[in-house]
Amino acid sequence: MENKLLKKGLNCIIEGKVNFGKNVSIGHNCILEDGVTIGDDVFIDNCVIVRNGTTIGSNSYIGSNCIIGEKSNGSKADKDSAGTLAIGHDALIRSSSIIYSGSIIGNYFQTGHRVTIREKSQIGDNVSVGTLSDIQGNCIIGNYVRMHSNVHIGQLSRIDSFVWIFPYVVLTNDPTPPSENFSGVHICSFAIVATGSIVMPGITIEQDSLIGAGAIVTKDVHQFDVVVGNPAKPIADIRNIKNKKTGELVYPWREHFSKYMPWEGTDYSSWYSNLSIDEKDNFGIK
Amino acid sequence: MENKLLKKGLNCIIEGKVNFGKNVSIGHNCILEDGVTIGDDVFIDNCVIVRNGTTIGSNSYIGSNCIIGEKSNGSKADKDSAGTLAIGHDALIRSSSIIYSGSIIGNYFQTGHRVTIREKSQIGDNVSVGTLSDIQGNCIIGNYVRMHSNVHIGQLSRIDSFVWIFPYVVLTNDPTPPSENFSGVHICSFAIVATGSIVMPGITIEQDSLIGAGAIVTKDVHQFDVVVGNPAKPIADIRNIKNKKTGELVYPWREHFSKYMPWEGTDYSSWYSNLSIDEKDNFGIK
Amino acid sequence: MENKLLKKGLNCIIEGKVNFGKNVSIGHNCILEDGVTIGDDVFIDNCVIVRNGTTIGSNSYIGSNCIIGEKSNGSKADKDSAGTLAIGHDALIRSSSIIYSGSIIGNYFQTGHRVTIREKSQIGDNVSVGTLSDIQGNCIIGNYVRMHSNVHIGQLSRIDSFVWIFPYVVLTNDPTPPSENFSGVHICSFAIVATGSIVMPGITIEQDSLIGAGAIVTKDVHQFDVVVGNPAKPIADIRNIKNKKTGELVYPWREHFSKYMPWEGTDYSSWYSNLSIDEKDNFGIK
Repeated sequence: MENKLLKKGLNCIIEGKVNFGKNVSIGHNCILEDGVTIGDDVFIDNCVIVRNGTTIGSNSYIGSNCIIGEKSNGSKADKDSAGTLAIGHDALIRSSSIIYSGSIIGNYFQTGHRVTIREKSQIGDNVSVGTLSDIQGNCIIGNYVRMHSNVHIGQLSRIDSFVWIFPYVVLTNDPTPPSENFSGVHICSFAIVATGSIVMPGITIEQDSLIGAGAIVTKDVHQFDVVVGNPAKPIADIRNIKNKKTGELVYPWREHFSKYMPWEGTDYSSWYSNLSIDEKDNFGIK
Repeated sequence: MENKLLKKGLNCIIEGKVNFGKNVSIGHNCILEDGVTIGDDVFIDNCVIVRNGTTIGSNSYIGSNCIIGEKSNGSKADKDSAGTLAIGHDALIRSSSIIYSGSIIGNYFQTGHRVTIREKSQIGDNVSVGTLSDIQGNCIIGNYVRMHSNVHIGQLSRIDSFVWIFPYVVLTNDPTPPSENFSGVHICSFAIVATGSIVMPGITIEQDSLIGAGAIVTKDVHQFDVVVGNPAKPIADIRNIKNKKTGELVYPWREHFSKYMPWEGTDYSSWYSNLSIDEKDNFGIK
Repeated sequence: MENKLLKKGLNCIIEGKVNFGKNVSIGHNCILEDGVTIGDDVFIDNCVIVRNGTTIGSNSYIGSNCIIGEKSNGSKADKDSAGTLAIGHDALIRSSSIIYSGSIIGNYFQTGHRVTIREKSQIGDNVSVGTLSDIQGNCIIGNYVRMHSNVHIGQLSRIDSFVWIFPYVVLTNDPTPPSENFSGVHICSFAIVATGSIVMPGITIEQDSLIGAGAIVTKDVHQFDVVVGNPAKPIADIRNIKNKKTGELVYPWREHFSKYMPWEGTDYSSWYSNLSIDEKDNFGIK
């Protein structure tokens, strides 16, 4: 027995067998390929293509012109490949985004417009990826990571939980280009990478550090360090930075800012003290 | 009595009531939602989505795959929201651009491809926004502003008239990221922001200044100053810069360059001397 | 006598006369305008628009939502313009790319997603252009050029064969912005331009040089020089750079790396020694 669509737009093409949950709405001109699974209360907007092997969790929104479950190297070659894509519940994928088959994405995933997420990406819960950002694949991204617009995450990058990445940041991976000696960047929990900085291959950015706007990061960055410049050098301890207007200390940010975070409505310490060891491990928090 | 479409492509979906002017052409596969108003002599290309509450001025062109009047946070939540979008006459919106509901855009607006313009933007006349540029919303942009490709205009930015912004420039807004203490950049008339520069939150860039390529602007920039470097420092008076080939002085640019400008065909001084006080105010020219 | 399509999706619109080769497949919702020529064994995915005057070579793949043969200044004005676009055989154009009419593109062309290639570009064989990259037109690009994501190639740029360009690089062209005194960048064979660097107008980057990440290149770069910083300065001879892990010399790269190159499977010297003078000329190799 199949669920009936709550709304199905005109000119939609549903190829083969698609599993629909309850209360699913689909806009006009959509193409859903064989072997797609759509959870309850999902809203798919106009002109969306969902390729075979894709699962979309309940209560998700997929914006117009998205391609979900895109195949690598052109569908021609990979039409029969066994790749799958799982997107968790409560996703909000804004229009014109492209997400490849071969990745696993957690719950409450959000994107801006025209985001690209390539294959073999592993993305946790509550991750947000801004307009035009490009996750190149073979990356591991934790929970509550927030990437702003036009961020480029090179292959083999590893981003722990609660990391903020601002517009036009690039994480590189090739120390002697061109080569195949790739070495990914590792960004630890609670680090902040400000606008337009470039992180060189194999660099580790430790917890609670701040990469200033436009920095070219050529060496590992230590906990609490603020680095700026080309090449980036430490100029301050983050714990001494004040809000210029109020004079208040503002870092580590987790003690001063909670928007989008699991400690929203309470405070970081209270939230942290209630975590189990497993949960701390999962978040990568020491 | 309704106007008849000059041309209507195949597979078009016109939901509810759409007001068409005279001589309107629509390509194939377009979706026009209820409550859309299309002016005279508008040409809408293929696969365009125009959402409810949108008004497109006469003699405009909307390229293929554009989404005009996009809703924030997914249509699911906002389908019933009262947002409107007004685009003036003679717009040229190139293909795959996304313009949100909740903004007001003047006449002779031009975009490249894949431009994003978020809600609550107020954009004057004769503004041009290049391919991939992203105006994040809550911005005020004057007249005759020309932004090249891949420019990122953060929320709360204010750009006066006759400003030039070149590729990969970012205007930021958060002095202590992550926070909500946003502070927008203000770029005054006749300023030039060259390729790849980043302007820090709350900075004012005064009239007739030049931000060099790749500059990281951390302090206010004074009139006639040329600043370069990270952090950006003044290195010259713009009035001393010469064309290397001809040896001629080239700044302030308004006295040497008129393409796309209202003084095209005459000269800046003649044009300026004919402006009323109100017009000068409107252009933000002192 | 016309070839029959191997597969034609639903809702396709074929306007006027389109010349199909053998074994051509077309997805759903495609629009092919009059005067299009499609070679043998071409696979066109869903929702592709191919405009009049376009020729696509045999064995090519065109991803979903691409616009191939786009017209400048809106189709309205240029619907009748005589522009043509020729793409060679074995192209792999990934989804949502836009390629203008008025360019010539060689064989084995590859793009990422959302690539833009404007008019009057001349592109050789075996060129790859990454996701979001934007070739602004009036450019000459050789063979085996590899551009990564989000590269911006300004008008009048000239890129010889075997050049590598990494993400977020910008080639500029206006020495005194705003002006029309454009002067393109020239990048010679075997040069490497690393992530996020900006090359100023009229600069020549000689063969075998390396532009470091984030460099602002204001002077010509000589053969074998490694330049970094803002403004970029020479810091090393590329022939002395070692792989930090193995201690091996890695440059000139052509002697150490062959992926995607015509000497893959053999070595550069052997391959080179078999070239005719004409072939060397064609590759721009001294």
